[in-house]
Amino acid sequence: MSNSTSTESSTAVAKRRLEAISNQVSPLGSSTFDTASYNEQLRIHRKPNQAVHSTALTPLRFLLRSAMVHGTKTAIIHRSRSYNYQTFADRIRRLASVLINDYNVQKGDRVGVLCNNIPAALEGNYAIPFSGAILVPLNTRLATKELDYILDHSGVSVLIVQEELFEKLSEEAKAKIKLILVSDSEDFRSDPFEQLLERCTNPFSWNQLHLPEDENSVISINYTSGSTGRPKGVMVTHKGSYLHALTVAIQNRLTTESIYMWTLPLFHCNGWGYPWSVVMVGGTQVMLNKLDYEYIWKLLIETGVTHYAGAPTVQNEICNHRNARRLPQEVRVVSGGSALSSTLVKRMTALNLQPLQVYGLTEVYGPSVMSYDISALENIPEEERNSRLARQGFNTVVTDELRILNHDTIQDVAPNGKEIGEICITGNTTMIGYYRDPVETEKAFKHGVFWTGDLAVRHVDGSIEIVDRSKDVIVSGGENVSSIEVESAIVQMEEVSECAIVASPDPKWGERPFAFVILRENAKLDPKDVISHCKNVLAGYKCPEGVRFVNSLPRTSTGKVQKYILRDELWKNYEKRIN
Amino acid sequence: MSNSTSTESSTAVAKRRLEAISNQVSPLGSSTFDTASYNEQLRIHRKPNQAVHSTALTPLRFLLRSAMVHGTKTAIIHRSRSYNYQTFADRIRRLASVLINDYNVQKGDRVGVLCNNIPAALEGNYAIPFSGAILVPLNTRLATKELDYILDHSGVSVLIVQEELFEKLSEEAKAKIKLILVSDSEDFRSDPFEQLLERCTNPFSWNQLHLPEDENSVISINYTSGSTGRPKGVMVTHKGSYLHALTVAIQNRLTTESIYMWTLPLFHCNGWGYPWSVVMVGGTQVMLNKLDYEYIWKLLIETGVTHYAGAPTVQNEICNHRNARRLPQEVRVVSGGSALSSTLVKRMTALNLQPLQVYGLTEVYGPSVMSYDISALENIPEEERNSRLARQGFNTVVTDELRILNHDTIQDVAPNGKEIGEICITGNTTMIGYYRDPVETEKAFKHGVFWTGDLAVRHVDGSIEIVDRSKDVIVSGGENVSSIEVESAIVQMEEVSECAIVASPDPKWGERPFAFVILRENAKLDPKDVISHCKNVLAGYKCPEGVRFVNSLPRTSTGKVQKYILRDELWKNYEKRIN
Repeated sequence: MSNSTSTESSTAVAKRRLEAISNQVSPLGSSTFDTASYNEQLRIHRKPNQAVHSTALTPLRFLLRSAMVHGTKTAIIHRSRSYNYQTFADRIRRLASVLINDYNVQKGDRVGVLCNNIPAALEGNYAIPFSGAILVPLNTRLATKELDYILDHSGVSVLIVQEELFEKLSEEAKAKIKLILVSDSEDFRSDPFEQLLERCTNPFSWNQLHLPEDENSVISINYTSGSTGRPKGVMVTHKGSYLHALTVAIQNRLTTESIYMWTLPLFHCNGWGYPWSVVMVGGTQVMLNKLDYEYIWKLLIETGVTHYAGAPTVQNEICNHRNARRLPQEVRVVSGGSALSSTLVKRMTALNLQPLQVYGLTEVYGPSVMSYDISALENIPEEERNSRLARQGFNTVVTDELRILNHDTIQDVAPNGKEIGEICITGNTTMIGYYRDPVETEKAFKHGVFWTGDLAVRHVDGSIEIVDRSKDVIVSGGENVSSIEVESAIVQMEEVSECAIVASPDPKWGERPFAFVILRENAKLDPKDVISHCKNVLAGYKCPEGVRFVNSLPRTSTGKVQKYILRDELWKNYEKRIN
Repeated sequence: MSNSTSTESSTAVAKRRLEAISNQVSPLGSSTFDTASYNEQLRIHRKPNQAVHSTALTPLRFLLRSAMVHGTKTAIIHRSRSYNYQTFADRIRRLASVLINDYNVQKGDRVGVLCNNIPAALEGNYAIPFSGAILVPLNTRLATKELDYILDHSGVSVLIVQEELFEKLSEEAKAKIKLILVSDSEDFRSDPFEQLLERCTNPFSWNQLHLPEDENSVISINYTSGSTGRPKGVMVTHKGSYLHALTVAIQNRLTTESIYMWTLPLFHCNGWGYPWSVVMVGGTQVMLNKLDYEYIWKLLIETGVTHYAGAPTVQNEICNHRNARRLPQEVRVVSGGSALSSTLVKRMTALNLQPLQVYGLTEVYGPSVMSYDISALENIPEEERNSRLARQGFNTVVTDELRILNHDTIQDVAPNGKEIGEICITGNTTMIGYYRDPVETEKAFKHGVFWTGDLAVRHVDGSIEIVDRSKDVIVSGGENVSSIEVESAIVQMEEVSECAIVASPDPKWGERPFAFVILRENAKLDPKDVISHCKNVLAGYKCPEGVRFVNSLPRTSTGKVQKYILRDELWKNYEKRIN
């Protein structure tokens, strides 16, 4: 792959890159189209009673448009396979038809997805709402009991599950829920999922499938990692997802020539909007069954990936890989979960990976605050630049209001970089509430704003900076770990009297849970016992990295554990404690 | 200005370009900000009764955000002046305050703008809705009587008018309407408009200004050129303008580093959405009081313009200018009004001007159909490429449905490139109706779609192609000329019995009106008399280029003049008749 020359246009460069791709992969042979009848179908999808000047906003329309406008362009690349937008759309149409016909999915039913970043997961993202059901993406790293809770709470009746994750399901779940298995094997003709699509020779037309009449209806229920205990089901709407997708495209500069690589888990806040955004612009999505950095560098170099997203852990692994080299193409990288160190930013930039840091929560559709544009930080003194890099930044275009409210006065803090308040967000990309949880919903929406639980200051230029997490979440490799949840698990041990979990610094994962434990009188335990107990009941990433037995915990006058004191001790020799 | 090198990032190149600008122009000195209090104001603009998860979509929010996020970035360049987003926002806040305080503007009032592409016009675009009023942009090329009709029909109570256009106003209009004069002189301190802003030392805070509670309320009434007779007032909404702005940014690839040059008239469908879009991304707008191609090339070369829009006439003048040369930066050009010839596309591409052709009408917020991406047309046989270049293409991301309906069956035509129907459009970027004209509104919205009046076919790939204009509009230099209107003017002459106006080919303007005239018996007239009569009653661009006296006109069985026969005669030796 040669470098861009100054006389060659950027579109010509992109064109060359896409040609290179088509030589690498062989198209899926199963679909042949009568383009005329296909386009005819795509066009008539409007209820007769709709006002001329009004349509329910939904990201599902992006697929219908791209299947026509970008029909023969590569939509998906997965290992040695690829297929174009017509095939992608046809597979989705078949999957939606199968859900309705073979799995009896009714409007409003919940259909889950428990898959890595494979095509079936992306196809489910569209096919489930097209079938009239609500999408429930499941975190593939959860333990059986955690999955059980979510499957039960959401009332999932059908689940698309990848074979390698099948054993995570309890016997009860396997018995109760109708399962659609995906093997994701290299020989795709033996894959039960592929066979299912293949057998669906008479799918519904697009007109018979579902487009919402109410743009404020729920498209997906995204479960939080349960930072205050039980996971909560965040209800996001068609309208919110549509608007969020537009801002993702604008602020990450997605175009028809973009090649997006799936390093970010698709189950995480609907993949931060990328499943909608990349389809909207007619770009290409490169799937990844797991984070194989050898393969990631092959994709960056040979496939010419232009965009990816992930936590600092992922950025770090990419930068430190032995195949790392400066790329000819500019790669736009979104990083979230915790802040990038200035060293890592320099390393990324040297590789032609241009980072944009974001902050967000499941409740606000993922990223809704973004840092300064790197270009806006050039040519300013290094100290000031690093200070700005540590800030979360500004609301995105579609986020309505990003405020820092004082807990006592419920007024905005002064923009002086000192007064601390809680980050509050409102607008079309704020969830409509927690599923089947009016109490938590009301709590979250007190005073007419959404309370994020993160404490921050506002600087004089309007940017915000997080100073602490009021909920004491530990962010490990981009995933939230609830300290309360881990504490609850440890306290179940007979020998344990009390426990406090706080974040400890970790060069690879950013933060890891660390346990301060008070034992019952005369009880004896080894730190290893605590960790192995946790491994039995929790996902691996939630298990404490270290355990320290103590006689007492520091407390406030009202008896609350002062976790910042514990953290201060663990982070003593580290540059930045909390990002 | 040096060329981009392969090791330099595109943002670094843009950065250098913006630095070059700041050396050319001197900032306006009048505004100094207390940034803290300014950002504080920008943040609290929410009605207490609004739902947490819902905000009225409005492009006015783009300004509030960019004033904070891009506060010190250059927003406007006009000749030797420039100012940043903070100053731009402050000027708008002052203008809105002046409208309310000094001109007694009330919510829902209509406020007009009759200006060339100068800063006051752009500022009015925001300040008028922020004052609670509805914007009425006026075509600067209209004659006094035409302006009178629109001013009267819209009920404009205040008009921002540029001094060089002042004489276009009738004495009646001058007496009845409160005028805000703009001299746009190089010595801006003597400009009455600048003095007005300067005197407003205590403007309203943003919180006291207007943001819509209903996103479907009217932001602007845009008068058509009256292709079927009288101009009609197209009502566009806050929501529609917001969504249209997002699609303009995505499909024209606007970014923070974009420098947009105002070759397109701002009065034309709210400048095709660019006043909203460029502000949304925090780009720079370069104003142009008139189409001075020497200056345009100076801006392209020295200021590093990255985007502009205009009719093929404008593209032609730019390409044929003696200063034309290949630009180091890729310039994204939107062209609309009629199709670009393949020769012109080649010439543009050679200069690094990358054209995107669009089709639209005032009723659908300007461009709502766009052609194939040029990159998608590379490497296909020339004949096929030219055939696709002549098509209008596909709906944009936010245009809901673009259909070609058979007049008799009201069903979609078959996508076979042959069956002709009328282009019909629906969705959020379709007008809500014609102001004070329920009859025309109902007619336009028959069967629940908007009827464009343009006849087209749909090709097998889903793209559409116009084959005729059912309304016989003449598109002269990107401006629509109503044949009926010119005919009405000519028929007023005593000597004239009948008249038919059709488009004649013109190398500069694309099309020009041409008159076929039947004289009354024994009457005598010179072609020059007809033209000079027209010049007394019509805008110059509407006056016929040529006049031919005939004894009869070709007619259908029901007596309708067969204009295509007249046109065929005039276009006999031309490659392409109607685009």
